[in-house]
Amino acid sequence: MASTIKKHNFSAGPAILPQSVLKEASQAVKNFNGIGLSILEISHRSPEFDAVIKEAESLVREIAGIDDSYAVLFLTGGASSQFYMTPMNLLGEDETAAYIDTGTWSSKAIKEAKNFGDIDIIASSKDRNYSYIPKRFKKPQDAAYLHITSNNTISGTQFHKFPDVGAPLICDMSSDIFSRPIDVSKFGMIYAGAQKNLGPSGVTLVILKKELVGRSGRVLPTMLNYQTHIDKGSMFNTPPTYPIYVLMLTLRWIKGKGGLEAIEKMNKSKARLLYKEIDSNPCFTGTVDKKDRSLMNVCFLPTKDEYAAPFLDMCTKAGISGVKGHRSVGGFRASIYNAMPRRSVKVLVDLMQEFAAKHG
Amino acid sequence: MASTIKKHNFSAGPAILPQSVLKEASQAVKNFNGIGLSILEISHRSPEFDAVIKEAESLVREIAGIDDSYAVLFLTGGASSQFYMTPMNLLGEDETAAYIDTGTWSSKAIKEAKNFGDIDIIASSKDRNYSYIPKRFKKPQDAAYLHITSNNTISGTQFHKFPDVGAPLICDMSSDIFSRPIDVSKFGMIYAGAQKNLGPSGVTLVILKKELVGRSGRVLPTMLNYQTHIDKGSMFNTPPTYPIYVLMLTLRWIKGKGGLEAIEKMNKSKARLLYKEIDSNPCFTGTVDKKDRSLMNVCFLPTKDEYAAPFLDMCTKAGISGVKGHRSVGGFRASIYNAMPRRSVKVLVDLMQEFAAKHG
Repeated sequence: MASTIKKHNFSAGPAILPQSVLKEASQAVKNFNGIGLSILEISHRSPEFDAVIKEAESLVREIAGIDDSYAVLFLTGGASSQFYMTPMNLLGEDETAAYIDTGTWSSKAIKEAKNFGDIDIIASSKDRNYSYIPKRFKKPQDAAYLHITSNNTISGTQFHKFPDVGAPLICDMSSDIFSRPIDVSKFGMIYAGAQKNLGPSGVTLVILKKELVGRSGRVLPTMLNYQTHIDKGSMFNTPPTYPIYVLMLTLRWIKGKGGLEAIEKMNKSKARLLYKEIDSNPCFTGTVDKKDRSLMNVCFLPTKDEYAAPFLDMCTKAGISGVKGHRSVGGFRASIYNAMPRRSVKVLVDLMQEFAAKHG
Repeated sequence: MASTIKKHNFSAGPAILPQSVLKEASQAVKNFNGIGLSILEISHRSPEFDAVIKEAESLVREIAGIDDSYAVLFLTGGASSQFYMTPMNLLGEDETAAYIDTGTWSSKAIKEAKNFGDIDIIASSKDRNYSYIPKRFKKPQDAAYLHITSNNTISGTQFHKFPDVGAPLICDMSSDIFSRPIDVSKFGMIYAGAQKNLGPSGVTLVILKKELVGRSGRVLPTMLNYQTHIDKGSMFNTPPTYPIYVLMLTLRWIKGKGGLEAIEKMNKSKARLLYKEIDSNPCFTGTVDKKDRSLMNVCFLPTKDEYAAPFLDMCTKAGISGVKGHRSVGGFRASIYNAMPRRSVKVLVDLMQEFAAKHG
């Protein structure tokens, strides 16, 4: 069943996971920790799973240095569900929330929030197809919070410095969480679908300053109230046990690599290698303002349209998958999340050079 | 790593899955269909995953004989999220919905629905600790729908005949879906958390008559509107890919066993074996009215309190797990879902006889 060529997985998400995590995750489906049962078929109330979810929370806290004034929750429904849960829980009907619009996902968050209060878009990079991060914005007046998207998977931009407007900062970190050190105390809330840097799809990490909960004053369905999940340790109902287990394994891997400083160092090295090639290769060009380039999603275009098809063809033959750009940007996108080995980036860079030698 | 004794997994959920499903599910975490990548790390938009979700939907339709007037959706958040999504989508503010209260899960559904309209509880078995299924109920007047829980995991009761009140029937089938033939045309909506008969936790199956959608007239968050998921084939955002994959494998297994008639025959045989022992063994007694007994969750008590601890101890030593009863009923509960082999039920029955020989 083994594939004959080594695969280099540049998928934007669900995305590459560490080989050691996949190996252990595969074994646990057959026989979890030698108990004679699969991780898929044990109760979420069993001591075995209880240990998993407790270790997952404890690793999140340890890796990001999170104190008890924050809750760490494992929810479902992806970041798309946080787009409405955030204002539903934290924004009163007569209040205003500030948003910065840096792309598709920010826009979706804004659209959902408009059902719950006044939304003030204090900055946007829509004027240049989201190819940069806005640096100037009007100070919002008495905003309940400011919402940003730290990394924009589709356009390949990233906040390298977070805005400070005095209001609690709420951040969708789906595509760059735990890719660099983070000072959680600067945030009111952080959320992230797991399927880029944390594990498989099916679980959403929410880190939430407890004192913010209940601010909207709304009567909420039990499952949509953050307080429910805080009170029940993310086990009000049956949680997505396997995605949480694989997330826990991935957190162990992050810790084993030396934590977020070590991870950032690796990520910077990979991104530098690839952007350097983009900037020097005559067949390719970057799409994003250099200072706002994402270390996670590297977007680039062919300098001639006719390069696109043969380059993608070469990629496929070399075992490189997932590099076709999103339709809204075109060209190519190489997602180089935490688990992407530098050697796979090197394979891509070598191929770009080979392509230029032929066509450039 | 292998356990030294064969395990017999009577867990109420997440619950036993077929060994062949677990084997294939484990392999796919290492290398999915020989493509050289894990099922956990491929895009939900990839042709490989698209084939998985399409096959899952197609198998649901084939196994249950579902036509195009129904949508088949794969959502997240468990049945607990359907408790509020159902009234949010299907019950207008000035309308009334009828509910039958047969236990913990019905009660939770009722509690959530009360936020969205008038709720008429037309029957309840609360008077006798939910140990039976109510047969008589007042006809609801112009109800938007009637909601029932087909199988009550905690108390061990099951509807063997579905009520007909003229209103669309909405059924939480989490713990007995696809355990017997089903005439979907009698239902407006069926929903089920996967983690009993369909797969691991993390995905919820929703079967929904399309013409009911939008009836509430409410402005809904995009993710909470059934129409969103109908329009996008359950892929508005990243779905829980691995839970859906394992659900698809489990549906293949059901089909391979001969479909729902064959499955029901096996389930009846297992339940008959166990209830017969309960009714004849001097050390145990059933908790539920005989005609309402569940074929999925078999609840029974020790005839003397002092039997409880030593019997559980014997179970553990024999590799039998998950038979401690829920705290609200006490005693024992053996969950014998589709994937439970008859030979494991026989092991339990033999142990009950051995116990009676010693203590009875």
